[in-house]
Amino acid sequence: MNTTPYKTYLSESELPSAWYNIRADMKKKPAPLLNPQTKAPVTAEELEHVFCRECVRQEMDDTTPYIPIPEPIRDFYKMYRPSPLVRAYFLERALETPAKIYYKFEGNNTSGSHKLNSAIAQAYYAKEQGLDDLTTETGAGQWGTALSMACAFFGLKCHVYMVKCSYEQKPFRREVMRTYGADVTPSPSMTTEIGRRINAEFPGTTGSLGCAISEAVEAAIKLPNARYVLGSVLNQVCLHQSVIGLETQAAFRKLGVKPDVIIGCAGGGSNLSGLIAPFIGEKLRGEEDYRIIAVEPASCPSLTRGRYAYDYCDTGKVCPLQKMYTLGAGYIPPPNHAGGLRYHGMSATLSELYDQKQIEACAVEQTSVFKAATLFARTEGTLPAPESSHAIRATIDEALRCKETGKEETIVFGLTGTGYFDMMAYQRFNDGQMNDVIPADADLAAGFAQLPVV
Amino acid sequence: MNTTPYKTYLSESELPSAWYNIRADMKKKPAPLLNPQTKAPVTAEELEHVFCRECVRQEMDDTTPYIPIPEPIRDFYKMYRPSPLVRAYFLERALETPAKIYYKFEGNNTSGSHKLNSAIAQAYYAKEQGLDDLTTETGAGQWGTALSMACAFFGLKCHVYMVKCSYEQKPFRREVMRTYGADVTPSPSMTTEIGRRINAEFPGTTGSLGCAISEAVEAAIKLPNARYVLGSVLNQVCLHQSVIGLETQAAFRKLGVKPDVIIGCAGGGSNLSGLIAPFIGEKLRGEEDYRIIAVEPASCPSLTRGRYAYDYCDTGKVCPLQKMYTLGAGYIPPPNHAGGLRYHGMSATLSELYDQKQIEACAVEQTSVFKAATLFARTEGTLPAPESSHAIRATIDEALRCKETGKEETIVFGLTGTGYFDMMAYQRFNDGQMNDVIPADADLAAGFAQLPVV
Repeated sequence: MNTTPYKTYLSESELPSAWYNIRADMKKKPAPLLNPQTKAPVTAEELEHVFCRECVRQEMDDTTPYIPIPEPIRDFYKMYRPSPLVRAYFLERALETPAKIYYKFEGNNTSGSHKLNSAIAQAYYAKEQGLDDLTTETGAGQWGTALSMACAFFGLKCHVYMVKCSYEQKPFRREVMRTYGADVTPSPSMTTEIGRRINAEFPGTTGSLGCAISEAVEAAIKLPNARYVLGSVLNQVCLHQSVIGLETQAAFRKLGVKPDVIIGCAGGGSNLSGLIAPFIGEKLRGEEDYRIIAVEPASCPSLTRGRYAYDYCDTGKVCPLQKMYTLGAGYIPPPNHAGGLRYHGMSATLSELYDQKQIEACAVEQTSVFKAATLFARTEGTLPAPESSHAIRATIDEALRCKETGKEETIVFGLTGTGYFDMMAYQRFNDGQMNDVIPADADLAAGFAQLPVV
Repeated sequence: MNTTPYKTYLSESELPSAWYNIRADMKKKPAPLLNPQTKAPVTAEELEHVFCRECVRQEMDDTTPYIPIPEPIRDFYKMYRPSPLVRAYFLERALETPAKIYYKFEGNNTSGSHKLNSAIAQAYYAKEQGLDDLTTETGAGQWGTALSMACAFFGLKCHVYMVKCSYEQKPFRREVMRTYGADVTPSPSMTTEIGRRINAEFPGTTGSLGCAISEAVEAAIKLPNARYVLGSVLNQVCLHQSVIGLETQAAFRKLGVKPDVIIGCAGGGSNLSGLIAPFIGEKLRGEEDYRIIAVEPASCPSLTRGRYAYDYCDTGKVCPLQKMYTLGAGYIPPPNHAGGLRYHGMSATLSELYDQKQIEACAVEQTSVFKAATLFARTEGTLPAPESSHAIRATIDEALRCKETGKEETIVFGLTGTGYFDMMAYQRFNDGQMNDVIPADADLAAGFAQLPVV
């Protein structure tokens, strides 16, 4: 007999009315952002040239535990939230594990991921501030799609700089953004100074996230009434994503279940910090204990093999310096890696929590990730995003450990998105043409050698 | 103040325990299927060479009103059902209409549509019968995906014949099916007699649904322990899809709301007959009245411009004859038409209900459909499938009529799926390269001239 339902939905009235700010409960706070020129802590005024005013306020606030979610954002959330907490009965059966596996599914919206949770918040604050345009960059395209949807909703013009190789390889992602009214420019482009410089210096380059960030920041500064927005890493983004964890906590309370292990993939860190937010709060306040596992790709192992140091957030080095686990701003993961999680660093909050040993981390190889993804798809129905499948891999490994020990642990992981726009990677896997490339120590050492001196 | 929630979810215990069979309440029943050779009504025994035993039983049962849903199918349904009934507050606001608009959203599963409702049922009955393999055809790919998922779940081997032009133009759909373990063969292939014959006769042909059906049927007959399955048109498929309408009815009862107008797109008719099932039951029994509107593409107008006559269900003329509204089995819609709904005929039940004037029909042009789709995406978030967008178009037109008359009518439509694999069509629309092609009377007359004499 099944004791909990397959899917637990909160009612709309149970949708969180405030985001939870992990930093408020941290005794040792994440280190402040530094101005990349002066190496002094950045001021709100400096950040407001680039980001919306309220987002800057949230970025710098490390004392307020709960920040109310404005009503128009909650109304938008109601179109796709509360998202379901799903019991993976069929995966459990396939693994023959005594573990109870749950996942919080964030992929049931057109952006295909959790990114929309922050995109709509940032677009709302931009609208409130009276701005006309927002600019951003996108690699795989999920964040660009989410921001396009948010801007369409609030009537803002959205300019997306899309890494040129993705622009060409993922024309469908590009068309989704255009359908929502965004203009999408392959980066490096000839529309910005930095784009023209890079095109001149590296003719035929297919671009990088770092370059796209620099172009988007330049475009925001040059437009008459615009700001730049970022989809991960930043404190404000982690704050908005706490809606994931708050709903998860409320659903578990409803079920009378306490998770033992909480697992999430970690690229920039926004989804994981969102999922764990209220749980880590309980842990920091000494109320409960949880094992929390950040899962990263073996090809881009910032937590498990990186340094905890100040580094640039972007390869263009125009953004503030952040203290984080990093592989160096110049680190580029092996090109064969599928999907996101390719970021060289990690959110400051997660980095500090990892340094304080409040969370664990592990690195997994991509063929094993796609094996896990395929098993999950065939048993649980949903075709997962490659990023999310890192968490599936670690979850399966934990469930198999429970099978060995006979322990009936409760595991919850974040299923951040669907893989519908990642079928080229699945095709490589289906055709047996995917392999694992793990960076050599020497490659990492080169990145560490370029860390800025602060 | 909003009086109903954005999304109404039934609990899992409220998931229907039986499908509803419209035919049981029809005084004048749909005409029987005929053997294409003898023109006599087909027998169960004849059909069981091609279809599973229980599916044949359901196909021919026009007296039992409720047919229990087996527990394993209900368990699978629980992975993605009950699906939400959504109030389209933001679309209403954009239209400034007094109408209250709801939609039943069937797209939140990896097949991207309602097709999974019948795929899992047909796979279950195949498994119960001890079969090893199922064969089918797919055009746009939604049905093939749904059957691949269902077969993966029950451990059946799935063989999909995919119309060659789709196979080449939609490699991602193909990869989704492969990820679920199906083998996907471009049709016409060299693996069947009919495929070899067509390839010899029309070198370089990019295939058709009719040819793919014939190949799938031939493959099913030649495999040692296999049957063929179809994703629309048939009575059994309409029966399985009644889960959509039963949930919709239950959700409206929960809300204390009675819809005035029910709208669905109609290709083969399975989604629409599923959505309207319990409502048309009330109407046939004289308990309630509803306006019910079938929306079809102007390029393939089987209800609005077709003939009500016996015709072949497939262009290969191997399947039984069915009495239905049809444009002739040889009718091929203009090639520029985007998405599904390209079927020349219509389910026998819907055809008979239309003939009895229990339901209305209208035809809409595709550029107006994509305009409606874009407005819906930008206001309601979800990027709709081109097929579903036909219903959106008609809903918007009805809501604008309410705006003129000031009537506060309640409209519900079926949002059958998402458009994530249809971005080439959106791109054509975004680039202003989509146009409307409506068949001339002479084109239709040619199709009617070839209707079989019964």
